[in-house]
Amino acid sequence: MEKITRVGVFTSGGDSPGMNAAIRAVVRTALYKDKKVTGIYHGYQGMIDNTMFDMDSQSVSSIIQMGGTVLKTARCMEFKTTEGRAKAYEHVRTAGIDALVAIGGDGTFTGAEIFSREFNIPVMCIPGTIDNDLNGTDLTIGYDTANNTVIEAIDKIRDTAASHNRLFFIEVMGRDSGCIALNAGVAGGAEAILLPERETAIDELIDMLEQAADRKKSSMIVIVAEGDKNGGANNVARCVQEKVGYYDTKVSILGHLQRGGAPSSADRVLATRMGYAAVNELLKGNTRATVGVRGSEIVTTPLEEALSKKELKLNEDLVEIAKIMAL
Amino acid sequence: MEKITRVGVFTSGGDSPGMNAAIRAVVRTALYKDKKVTGIYHGYQGMIDNTMFDMDSQSVSSIIQMGGTVLKTARCMEFKTTEGRAKAYEHVRTAGIDALVAIGGDGTFTGAEIFSREFNIPVMCIPGTIDNDLNGTDLTIGYDTANNTVIEAIDKIRDTAASHNRLFFIEVMGRDSGCIALNAGVAGGAEAILLPERETAIDELIDMLEQAADRKKSSMIVIVAEGDKNGGANNVARCVQEKVGYYDTKVSILGHLQRGGAPSSADRVLATRMGYAAVNELLKGNTRATVGVRGSEIVTTPLEEALSKKELKLNEDLVEIAKIMAL
Amino acid sequence: MEKITRVGVFTSGGDSPGMNAAIRAVVRTALYKDKKVTGIYHGYQGMIDNTMFDMDSQSVSSIIQMGGTVLKTARCMEFKTTEGRAKAYEHVRTAGIDALVAIGGDGTFTGAEIFSREFNIPVMCIPGTIDNDLNGTDLTIGYDTANNTVIEAIDKIRDTAASHNRLFFIEVMGRDSGCIALNAGVAGGAEAILLPERETAIDELIDMLEQAADRKKSSMIVIVAEGDKNGGANNVARCVQEKVGYYDTKVSILGHLQRGGAPSSADRVLATRMGYAAVNELLKGNTRATVGVRGSEIVTTPLEEALSKKELKLNEDLVEIAKIMAL
Amino acid sequence: MEKITRVGVFTSGGDSPGMNAAIRAVVRTALYKDKKVTGIYHGYQGMIDNTMFDMDSQSVSSIIQMGGTVLKTARCMEFKTTEGRAKAYEHVRTAGIDALVAIGGDGTFTGAEIFSREFNIPVMCIPGTIDNDLNGTDLTIGYDTANNTVIEAIDKIRDTAASHNRLFFIEVMGRDSGCIALNAGVAGGAEAILLPERETAIDELIDMLEQAADRKKSSMIVIVAEGDKNGGANNVARCVQEKVGYYDTKVSILGHLQRGGAPSSADRVLATRMGYAAVNELLKGNTRATVGVRGSEIVTTPLEEALSKKELKLNEDLVEIAKIMAL
Repeated sequence: MEKITRVGVFTSGGDSPGMNAAIRAVVRTALYKDKKVTGIYHGYQGMIDNTMFDMDSQSVSSIIQMGGTVLKTARCMEFKTTEGRAKAYEHVRTAGIDALVAIGGDGTFTGAEIFSREFNIPVMCIPGTIDNDLNGTDLTIGYDTANNTVIEAIDKIRDTAASHNRLFFIEVMGRDSGCIALNAGVAGGAEAILLPERETAIDELIDMLEQAADRKKSSMIVIVAEGDKNGGANNVARCVQEKVGYYDTKVSILGHLQRGGAPSSADRVLATRMGYAAVNELLKGNTRATVGVRGSEIVTTPLEEALSKKELKLNEDLVEIAKIMAL
Repeated sequence: MEKITRVGVFTSGGDSPGMNAAIRAVVRTALYKDKKVTGIYHGYQGMIDNTMFDMDSQSVSSIIQMGGTVLKTARCMEFKTTEGRAKAYEHVRTAGIDALVAIGGDGTFTGAEIFSREFNIPVMCIPGTIDNDLNGTDLTIGYDTANNTVIEAIDKIRDTAASHNRLFFIEVMGRDSGCIALNAGVAGGAEAILLPERETAIDELIDMLEQAADRKKSSMIVIVAEGDKNGGANNVARCVQEKVGYYDTKVSILGHLQRGGAPSSADRVLATRMGYAAVNELLKGNTRATVGVRGSEIVTTPLEEALSKKELKLNEDLVEIAKIMAL
Repeated sequence: MEKITRVGVFTSGGDSPGMNAAIRAVVRTALYKDKKVTGIYHGYQGMIDNTMFDMDSQSVSSIIQMGGTVLKTARCMEFKTTEGRAKAYEHVRTAGIDALVAIGGDGTFTGAEIFSREFNIPVMCIPGTIDNDLNGTDLTIGYDTANNTVIEAIDKIRDTAASHNRLFFIEVMGRDSGCIALNAGVAGGAEAILLPERETAIDELIDMLEQAADRKKSSMIVIVAEGDKNGGANNVARCVQEKVGYYDTKVSILGHLQRGGAPSSADRVLATRMGYAAVNELLKGNTRATVGVRGSEIVTTPLEEALSKKELKLNEDLVEIAKIMAL
Repeated sequence: MEKITRVGVFTSGGDSPGMNAAIRAVVRTALYKDKKVTGIYHGYQGMIDNTMFDMDSQSVSSIIQMGGTVLKTARCMEFKTTEGRAKAYEHVRTAGIDALVAIGGDGTFTGAEIFSREFNIPVMCIPGTIDNDLNGTDLTIGYDTANNTVIEAIDKIRDTAASHNRLFFIEVMGRDSGCIALNAGVAGGAEAILLPERETAIDELIDMLEQAADRKKSSMIVIVAEGDKNGGANNVARCVQEKVGYYDTKVSILGHLQRGGAPSSADRVLATRMGYAAVNELLKGNTRATVGVRGSEIVTTPLEEALSKKELKLNEDLVEIAKIMAL
């Protein structure tokens, strides 16, 4: 294997809080190892458009606390074509980049895997997505921050007057993954949590709410993952309202604010450790893999393995705990 | 006029952050003036249900920082009937309450005015609502906190990646009043703000967005007051999407989280000053009035006057400023 | 008077949250009025060092929510000399700047007044300091944010276990002005507040604390302005500890974190309105003055007047209210 | 072993955010398992003073988001005597408590171990302390929240103007453990971190700062754990100031505000899982142990083992990473 002299770094797909901390760690670790660093704007699109620039230590000053990504991000259709990738590689090669660090989610990993194989360029991935739906790691960068954002919203809603029979529905992110809904639901003390991974019939939900109302609760909070089979918080609220009219239902749809905000301490440390590890792994000759965290250890997993199956992230114990806590 | 020996205090209508600070100030000021204090749960409903209790200094310890209201609140239909109010007065009289402090919005003021006239009981009101839509005061308790809550949401959304042609719609509270939308829109640097007080045609909005896009902006944020004539953020987003398909539109509906949260410093100080003034005014013989703030002065306005007309709260200069700032 | 074609803008002295919002408003208002804008780094020092740059609308994009100041700030000794100011003016003139907007506090205003007189250049000031100690305005930019920062700290300290006889001292900013201490003290529900404007003997403080302890309070919070005559929170804590050993005293010194943070909604709106007004006033021919807010109106005051006397900002009613609330 | 019918729960030692979530989980899990629950105020002191009360599901409603502990806490000397423990046991026995859940730190665990052995009463411990200095778990309840609190302070300080040669010292908690200092230092992007576990000579610190200054940095942040051998941030600042006068040094001492605040999502979920596990382990016959988390698994460790040695929590890799990131 050739010696690495210049590392390219980019973020791709949906952004997540902590990506900047990862970029900073990649840049400073590479510089410390006497490598040069090229930043690539807008992910794979930037390779094709050749929007790249040389990064020094100062170029990542005071970004660790910022949400979003200073390298911007994009979804790129052209990179899915052989021609697109060829053009991208041409620019990468011309820039003198001989290894890549890709920060993003599933689609980012897929692109990285193909690109690395096609052009035999070393690539390490870093899992950055608020959804925590990636294989090869316990936690993805941004997930912790997103959970904190959601519980702040829940806490505020819980503050409001305990009028009788008021029912709040809060829709949170998670098209396929109920991680945020489940965690934030437990942390926010929700009375019910609707997850994409399992169907909850409206009648079943009404049963739960009526049991809760029987016990003691006058106001109740239901967390609905956007990917819930009933079609989102607006639909669920309408269905409940239609079936049992005595609730005053209120809906909040948090939307993209869950992607933003200053990253939490845990996300910044995780991102920093992962960025550091990604460069070191590349320099040790590891490639076509993703870094991840298992317990308190940083590990790597081949991309092929990470992409081959969806690991079940949903913590079944926590689903059970959520129910008991709502009693 | 009879000497006041016991003050009753309650919160009514929608709750707002800072109500607890007002309750605390009422209680402690009254006790300091050697009066007794009765807390009434659930506003007018609590008078009818006779859910009252004696309040000492400790009963309001460590509540100044809490959202919501420890006295709970409710909307009460029965109080709108002569019989309901008669029952309420019977309980108030039996409890030895000879003056009332009512904290809430428009409906609360109306009830207080009628009750005070019917039974000749002294009443002072304190304006507590996030909507800032009350006459007789520059600011209502909770409005400042709600604005801060909304801009935190806007800030987070602005963080997320500046993908091209991404268009965010954030729906904020304000059925009839655009105060929150306008202030938070200016403070959040929104590209456009839709207010209930004026109609904004979808085409006009699209024009504004295209101008903004022409200049420089790739991602844009539109604040939509819930009372906007186009029918809320979901509708506006759909209309824009239908007319000009090249935007990727995202919607957040903040909902009741705007009512909660720890009150801001300004709301706590305002509430404390108003609670202090309300009791002092009652003891000086002032009645059937609301306290308010004008500039840095606490003032009072007769309820009749405060209820007679809707003052235009919308700051026209700020509407103009909002447009210039979006350029 | 000559027509203005280019406005220079700078921040000087201590920074405060909201300065960026003011800069943005100055830039965008001037551009809207078809003026050019020059940004000057590091305040008066930047005039001397000639670190200036042309500002367009995008140069102030996405800064409204940022603490600090993108134009940096500095204290500048050289500007206090005739030679320094002559050099500064030379650079200002060469850059084509024919009017200035200065954002800062007392020292900034003094420099602006002298510079404007000496070289007959139009200048408008904007009050930016967390201390709220400027004449000519009810509120300075940053003060509201600083109060919110302090009460978040107080709230957190109040959370910790109510062990018996635990006494917390929190030192807040304010060398000569007790505005933050008083407001945040009231908003945080402090048991005692030590202000620079009045001496509080340690014995008097101990009396207050023992009265509070007699009534009910097991844990107490004392706010100490840094300019308190007893010498700061560490000293006060030590003195109390020496005199009455049965307290477990804990000290927090907030320091410069009070200057930072995302500006509050109120500070952003205030700064935006002031920046807008400053440019408009310059264009109307007003000069050597500061903008300010009185109630809900934006006003201007000649610098000579604003600098001639220190207005008493300390709200005496609030001092009285603070005592009653602590009972 | 006897069947358990009533579980006693208490918090002891320093409080930490998330303790309420643990209490709530213990109560609701025990009730779900058809056990009765007694809450004991003020930890071991409350056993001696017999301040106990029956807890139902509503007694822990809406506490999951609160800092501090609703059961209060205390340090108790009397419990260190045989007589004190005998009195405590008498009250525990009379109350019908036949198993205990103790939430707290090192001292709490020691007391629990002795008490359990002496009176043969089943006890499970839950690690609650912001210091993360307990054996048998990767993370203690409150540590994540404290890290978030510290980085918010660092972020705010970083906002303030980048005047030349300004040097900020932030003192954070950690008498013996540098966990908070190290993690928050990395997450906050500190230029240097002083830890209790290793001596940093002032000259060495000055070297680091001058290297940083040489590179690029005009303002620098140094995190100082309170247990640092140089004697705290005030002392370090003074020493640096004396040796190299050209820095303008500023000190913030965060103090007890690090113990407060609404717990983070991660702390709430961790506390909930641990509370749930503690009760289940007791019911399964496990005793004289602490629950903990290893990676994503909840585990238990005998108290004897957990107390026998101090595990090195300081992450050596992270110490190295911190240095590279500051370059």
